[in-house]
Amino acid sequence: MAVHLMSLARRLRRALGTDAVVTEEAALRTYECDGLTHYRVTPGLVVLPESAEEVRFVVRECADAGVPFVARGAGTGLSGGALPVAEGVLIVTSRMRRILDVDLANQRAIVEPGVVNLAISQAVRPSGYFYAPDPSSQVVCTIGGNVAENSGGAHCLKYGFTAHHVTGLEVCTPDGELMWIGAGKAAETAGYDLVGVFVGAEGTLGIATKVAVRLLRAPQAVVTVLAAFRTTEEAGAAVSAIIAAGLTPAAAEIMDALAIEAAEKAVGCGYPQGAGAVLLVECDGPAVEVVAQVDDVETLCRRTGAFALRRAADDAERADLWRGRKSAFAAVGRISPNYIVQDGVIPRTRLAEVLHDIGELGRDAGIRVANVFHAGDGNLHPLVLYDARVPGAALAAEEVSGAILDLCVAHGGSITGEHGVGVDKATKLPRMFSADDLDTMQLVRCAFDPRHLANPGKVFPTPRLCGEQPRHREAEAVPAVPTGTELW
Amino acid sequence: MAVHLMSLARRLRRALGTDAVVTEEAALRTYECDGLTHYRVTPGLVVLPESAEEVRFVVRECADAGVPFVARGAGTGLSGGALPVAEGVLIVTSRMRRILDVDLANQRAIVEPGVVNLAISQAVRPSGYFYAPDPSSQVVCTIGGNVAENSGGAHCLKYGFTAHHVTGLEVCTPDGELMWIGAGKAAETAGYDLVGVFVGAEGTLGIATKVAVRLLRAPQAVVTVLAAFRTTEEAGAAVSAIIAAGLTPAAAEIMDALAIEAAEKAVGCGYPQGAGAVLLVECDGPAVEVVAQVDDVETLCRRTGAFALRRAADDAERADLWRGRKSAFAAVGRISPNYIVQDGVIPRTRLAEVLHDIGELGRDAGIRVANVFHAGDGNLHPLVLYDARVPGAALAAEEVSGAILDLCVAHGGSITGEHGVGVDKATKLPRMFSADDLDTMQLVRCAFDPRHLANPGKVFPTPRLCGEQPRHREAEAVPAVPTGTELW
Repeated sequence: MAVHLMSLARRLRRALGTDAVVTEEAALRTYECDGLTHYRVTPGLVVLPESAEEVRFVVRECADAGVPFVARGAGTGLSGGALPVAEGVLIVTSRMRRILDVDLANQRAIVEPGVVNLAISQAVRPSGYFYAPDPSSQVVCTIGGNVAENSGGAHCLKYGFTAHHVTGLEVCTPDGELMWIGAGKAAETAGYDLVGVFVGAEGTLGIATKVAVRLLRAPQAVVTVLAAFRTTEEAGAAVSAIIAAGLTPAAAEIMDALAIEAAEKAVGCGYPQGAGAVLLVECDGPAVEVVAQVDDVETLCRRTGAFALRRAADDAERADLWRGRKSAFAAVGRISPNYIVQDGVIPRTRLAEVLHDIGELGRDAGIRVANVFHAGDGNLHPLVLYDARVPGAALAAEEVSGAILDLCVAHGGSITGEHGVGVDKATKLPRMFSADDLDTMQLVRCAFDPRHLANPGKVFPTPRLCGEQPRHREAEAVPAVPTGTELW
Repeated sequence: MAVHLMSLARRLRRALGTDAVVTEEAALRTYECDGLTHYRVTPGLVVLPESAEEVRFVVRECADAGVPFVARGAGTGLSGGALPVAEGVLIVTSRMRRILDVDLANQRAIVEPGVVNLAISQAVRPSGYFYAPDPSSQVVCTIGGNVAENSGGAHCLKYGFTAHHVTGLEVCTPDGELMWIGAGKAAETAGYDLVGVFVGAEGTLGIATKVAVRLLRAPQAVVTVLAAFRTTEEAGAAVSAIIAAGLTPAAAEIMDALAIEAAEKAVGCGYPQGAGAVLLVECDGPAVEVVAQVDDVETLCRRTGAFALRRAADDAERADLWRGRKSAFAAVGRISPNYIVQDGVIPRTRLAEVLHDIGELGRDAGIRVANVFHAGDGNLHPLVLYDARVPGAALAAEEVSGAILDLCVAHGGSITGEHGVGVDKATKLPRMFSADDLDTMQLVRCAFDPRHLANPGKVFPTPRLCGEQPRHREAEAVPAVPTGTELW
C-alpha cells in the first residue's frame, strides 16, 4: 500500500475505530467489483462509516490528501458505478442502515443510505404505506445506490423512478461538507433544485448521507394479468393499445420466447404453451377501478392477438405469474454460460421495429439474444448470450451488445434506462451527446468536484479540465436536439 | 441610452430586423414590471426573437458585450423574476409561439417558450389529451415562464409541478450556446439530469428555447365537491382525512371567510351562508373510480364538520363552483385597495396551526389577511390587505407578510411554493439556507454563468464570487437539515 494511503488509514482508524477500516489484501478483494463482474479493481482501502458525520470526516481526509473515493452500497449495480479506484478509498455504507424517521401524516421518511430498498416498505407496510421504486434487486440493494443510479423497477411505468420519490437529501460534497438539498416535509422548496441533478449523478457529485423519501398509500387492490401472444410484436401492440386507451397499469412487462424458455427451465413457471411472448400487466388502485381496468386490459390484449389470458387476484396467484419474470435474468444462466445485460431505452412506439432489428442483429452474428423489458417505458433489457470458453465469442457478444445500444440511440432513445452509465458505458456516452454537450454537463461536476476525487472515471468518457471558463464554440450547423432524434 | 447599448441595438437590428428591437423610451416602459408591480425598472432595450437561433444570436452578442439579459414570457410572474435590468437587454419570447410537434402515441409535444400554457391543452384536447400544470394565469402565461418558475396550479396536488411534466429542453446557455438537455421521446436519458435544475432556476442558468412536455390522457370523468365548514381548521382537517384515507384528489383548495366575502362581492358565487371556510375537492379519473372517491370525500367532509355539501358533475356546474376560487385574487381588490400575495409552503399536517398563527399575526397588527390555498400541498397564498394611501400601512403589511414567511420556515416549510424567489424574496432566502449552502447552490450558477449576465439580481441575495474553489468551511455544530425543520 502506498505510504500516503497507510497514513490515511491510520488517521481513519483513530477517528472511526479499528474495525471500520479494512486494509488487508484478501478482505479488500471482496470489494473488487459490483454486479458487473467483468470489471475488477481492488480498492486501496475500505472504510465503513456509521454516520453522516463519519462520512464527512472520511471525505474531508480524502480531499485533504488528494485521494479519490468511491461510495458503495450493496454492490448490486450493473454498470460498474461502484467499481473501486486502486489508489483510492471505498466508502461502504452498509453500517448506515437506520430508518431515522417515519412521518406517515406527511407521507415522508428519512433513512440512511445503507438502508435496503425493501426495508422501507417493510417498515411502513403495517400502517398501509409503501416506498414505490422497486429495482429487481430490492431485497438487497440500498437506497444510497438507488439515489446514485436513479434506479427504476417494474413499477416505474406508473410510479416513476427514484428521482420522483426522493424529496430531499443530506449530501457530503467532495470537499467534505454536509449540506441539505431539496425540501424537508413540505412539498416544495426555494432556490435551485439540486436533488434532480444529484439523483442519478452516480456518485460523481458527492455521497448521500440521508435520504428523504415519499411514502405512498398501499393500493386497495392489485390484480395481475398474464397474456400470451405468438410474437413480441403483438405483445408490444397490446401495450401501445393499453396506454393509448388512457389506462395506466402499475407495470407492463414483456418476455420473449428465449427468455420464457430460460425461465421455464429454471423455475418451471408454466406459462402458456406456444407463447412467443408473454405480457404481464399489473393494475393497482381502488378495487372498483382495478376491476374495470383489468377488464379493459384483457379486451385489448385479445384484440391485439392474445391467445391465452390468466388473471391473478390474490398475492399467491400474483407471485406465481411473476415468478418467471423475476427469475428471468438468473434463469438465462441455465441456457447460456455467459451473457451481457443491456439497458437501452427507446420511445415506446418504436418497440416492434427495434425488437425486429435486434432479432436480425443476433441472427446475422449467430448470437442468441433474449429480451426482457419494461415495455410501458420502452426500457429494454436484451440479454446477449455467449460462451466465454469459445474464442472470440465474448468479443462478438460485446459487438452485438454495442450495436443494440446504437439502435436505441438511432431511434431517439438512450444507452441506459435504470442501470446507469458507470464505467461500462462511459465510452458510449458520445453516441448520445456531442463533446461540447458533455463538456457543458461537466461544468456541474467541476463546480462540485474540480479535482475529480468523487468516483473518478465514471459517467464521462473524458474528464473535463476544470477551471476553464465556458467559451464560445463554433456555431453548429445541426440543431441542438439529442443525437439520433429527429426534430419532432 | 449608453453607447454600448446603442451599438448592440444596431447589430441586433441588422440581424433580426428593425421591428424586432425596441429602443423607444415609451415602448420600453411597457416592459418595466411583471405581475409584481411594485418593482419597476425600464430595460435598456427589448428584443423580440422569432427562433432559437435568434435567441442564441442575441445572447452571444450580450455575452460578447458583457451586457446582462433577462428573459420574459407574458410577464405574469408574481416574484419579479422578469424584472428588467436598466443597462441590460430584455429578451421577450412572445413571437416564439409555435407548437413544433405533437406526438400523441408517445404522449409528448415540443413547443417554443412563448406558447401560452393553455394553448397546449387546446391543441390536443380534440384528441383526448391535456397538459397538466395549470397556474391560474394559464390563459396568458407562457411555457417559458412556467419553466423558469417551476409553476404549479390548483391541480398539482395530483399531477405535480412543471418540473414533473417537462421531459427535455433546448436551452441557450449564458455564453450563447444551444444545447439539448434531458430526454427526447424516450422515458429516460443518460448522464446528468440538468432538466431538474434548469426548471425553476428562474432564468439564471440560461433561456429555454424549446420545451418538450408530457401530454396526459384527459380523464374520463371529473367531479367537483364543495364543502362548507364553520372554520378553516375543520376544512384543513377534512383535507388531512382525505389524504390519510389514500384518496388522491386532483385538487383540494380552501378559501377562508374573508376570501369568500371578497369572492361573493366580486362574482356572487353563492357559496353556503355562514361558511367560515369552503373546501373545493376535485376528483378525476375513470368514471367508476371518481364516483367512489367522491362518495368517500363527502363522507370524510361530513365527519370533520362540513355543514353543507354540493356536488357538480358537468362542466357548467363545475365552473360554477370554481368561479369563487378562480376570482379570489382579483376579488380581493373589491374589499381592499391594495394587497400583497404570499406563497409560503408548510408540511400539510401543520395547516391548522399555521392558519391560527397567521390569524393572530393579523389581529395583533390590525391587518386583515385573507387566505386562499392549495391545501393538499400545504401551499398557502395569504393575501395581506392594506390601503397604500394610509401612511405606514404598506410597511405594516410588508411586515406581516414577512412574518408569515418566517412562520412557514419555522414550521419546516418554504418561502415560495410556485411563484419563485425572483427579486422579491431573494433577501429572504437566508431564512431557509445558510450562507454556505447558498454558496454551494451558486456553484452551479457560476459553472454556467460566471459573469452573472443571466437574470442578475434574482434568486440569490448575494452573488457568489465565481472562480473560487470549493473550500473547507468551519465544521458546523448543527445538522445539515433545512433551517427550521426538526430532524425527523
